[in-house]
Amino acid sequence: MTATAMNKDGFGFELLARSGSARAGRITCAHGTVATPAFIPVGTAGTVKAMTPEAVAATGAEMVLANTYHLMLRPGAELIAKLGGLHRFMNWRRPILTDSGGFQVMSLAKFREITDGGVVFQSHLDGSRHELTPERAIEIQHQLGADISMVLDECTPYPASEADAAKSMRLSMGWAQRSAAAFDRRPGTGLFGIVQGGVWGDLRRESAAALIEIGFDGYAIGGLAVGEGRELMLSTLEATVPALPEEAPRYLMGAGYPADIIGAVGRGIDMFDCVLPTRSGRTGKAFTRRGEINIMNARHIEDPRPLDEACRCPACADYSRAYLSHLARAGEMLGGTLMSWHNLQFFQDLMAGLRDAIANDTFDAYATAFLAEYRSGDIEAL
Amino acid sequence: MTATAMNKDGFGFELLARSGSARAGRITCAHGTVATPAFIPVGTAGTVKAMTPEAVAATGAEMVLANTYHLMLRPGAELIAKLGGLHRFMNWRRPILTDSGGFQVMSLAKFREITDGGVVFQSHLDGSRHELTPERAIEIQHQLGADISMVLDECTPYPASEADAAKSMRLSMGWAQRSAAAFDRRPGTGLFGIVQGGVWGDLRRESAAALIEIGFDGYAIGGLAVGEGRELMLSTLEATVPALPEEAPRYLMGAGYPADIIGAVGRGIDMFDCVLPTRSGRTGKAFTRRGEINIMNARHIEDPRPLDEACRCPACADYSRAYLSHLARAGEMLGGTLMSWHNLQFFQDLMAGLRDAIANDTFDAYATAFLAEYRSGDIEAL
Repeated sequence: MTATAMNKDGFGFELLARSGSARAGRITCAHGTVATPAFIPVGTAGTVKAMTPEAVAATGAEMVLANTYHLMLRPGAELIAKLGGLHRFMNWRRPILTDSGGFQVMSLAKFREITDGGVVFQSHLDGSRHELTPERAIEIQHQLGADISMVLDECTPYPASEADAAKSMRLSMGWAQRSAAAFDRRPGTGLFGIVQGGVWGDLRRESAAALIEIGFDGYAIGGLAVGEGRELMLSTLEATVPALPEEAPRYLMGAGYPADIIGAVGRGIDMFDCVLPTRSGRTGKAFTRRGEINIMNARHIEDPRPLDEACRCPACADYSRAYLSHLARAGEMLGGTLMSWHNLQFFQDLMAGLRDAIANDTFDAYATAFLAEYRSGDIEAL
Repeated sequence: MTATAMNKDGFGFELLARSGSARAGRITCAHGTVATPAFIPVGTAGTVKAMTPEAVAATGAEMVLANTYHLMLRPGAELIAKLGGLHRFMNWRRPILTDSGGFQVMSLAKFREITDGGVVFQSHLDGSRHELTPERAIEIQHQLGADISMVLDECTPYPASEADAAKSMRLSMGWAQRSAAAFDRRPGTGLFGIVQGGVWGDLRRESAAALIEIGFDGYAIGGLAVGEGRELMLSTLEATVPALPEEAPRYLMGAGYPADIIGAVGRGIDMFDCVLPTRSGRTGKAFTRRGEINIMNARHIEDPRPLDEACRCPACADYSRAYLSHLARAGEMLGGTLMSWHNLQFFQDLMAGLRDAIANDTFDAYATAFLAEYRSGDIEAL
């Protein structure tokens, strides 16, 4: 195929291969390149929980996400800027994507009031009062030094009536316009718009059209993976993705499970982020090629096998399930580290497998085989 | 000087240099060599808390300690043996020293009854009833696969009357005899006796003589660093060390602070273990060349400097005090990891400095300069 390439002042996206609606590509930004489809580990407070940056990089992750909401409250974006930016602060020298803070204001803040101007809220940490406007969200992300910034949006809750979803989406489109106007482009940085509209195809298309009219470096799909279920999520993607530009990266925010990712890649999504690998890892859950296991289950106590025979991460190369079970039962921090490491490796391996399958135009066969094995379940120890 | 060398079936100790009473040497055992004076990080439950084994090794540690008490209760010594031993279980391929469990039975168990035979106690985890005899303590350490095993002893509490200390010490000497009789030597493994006797020089000498009569591969000094204070600890060492054989390693159990270690090395001690670097690291305390700091102190919040300019550990090479302060305030696990890493590096660097100073016969000057700098205090940020 002929590569479709987009490049704007050092920020670029190239499409390298296609298999059905699935696509493989490469994002280029200030701190490096990111092969797509990409899974972006979440480093909420400027650290991917329980992991060193070296360990995150060792899994193959090329970009991490950091949360504007958390960092603006503690330690503060001005301080991070003064200390040389987030890359230096957290010692992650590859690309960083920051969210706008809107989602966490809705899910974490103690109190919030939304106006056309923005959102006023109380910190979940100390009750202090803060305001987030589209302009301020962009300024914070600039202070952090993000490679990719996101517009401020309101994540429409699920369920929502069509009228409520429409109202919420149109508010977000106004904020997107203001976010774009406020964005001070540095070489190699990009700004993504966020499509909203709940599960209503017409609203999603209206939202996509509004964002395209403004013009962004990439297009995210927000307001999904919030309880609507996989079927509705994927059908909403089917209604939305065709309305997005071919030449720009597409990012499904906050998803998800391996089947979510595979389904979304098959519908043309290029980027994902989710806390699942790390949060699961800290609570004893592991993703394996034969599905999910809970290391706290008694059947792992004496099991000399690794979590996943096919995995090359340190948790699998050097340790038994018995040891990981012991660490989890003893509440040892190394358990959270090793389990998170494995899970992040699992998600990166999944993405690498998807990219290879797209390059070989065997996406459907790969997806089918992967999911069949995933659903076959763990083999119990003899 | 002429090297004093001791070698028994693959377990050996060579004395390589002397400076006053301080000595530098090398222990050889089944899983490698350990340069002395050595600081042995504590891996209580089969993990040096918050650290990967690779990180522990990167600090220069050549041996770790694991606790018989913790491992016998969870996951059980039989299980570890079945899984190939503790080295494989915890993925630490260098030497391991195990304690006998006696100290933790006294400090952690819910209930215990000491008889001449041994000690019956209830697990602090689940209240289950267990017995630890000298023979069983040795058997467990054999199952774990320790390079260096310790005899079962009663750690005499402080304060204790001379009569109580004598009675406790004589009980321990009986147990030492039985421990030695039960020890099934594998190539490259050794058994250490433990001198008791409280702060009473005559009792310490009686204990040392009793142990020498039995004959051990090394001699530990127990029952110190339990609240008696540095002065009394060092004077007790002065009364004890001359009674120990020149050609065997000497191990001061459970100490301590840098000044404790320097004082003890100056009195002829070769080995140390302590939870201080890791426990302090997890609670925000760092050891630096200019003393101890608490990263939770507000003055570190905006400080761009590393914990210790002279340290080459990742916490110092790649991160600011501001970032470590942020991690500690946010309760992020990486904070505990980086602070523990730094502290372990600090202790290993201290030991390397002491070894070099002994080799150059400049121990006193080095100790004086180190302690002067240590006591000079942290330089505040501008």
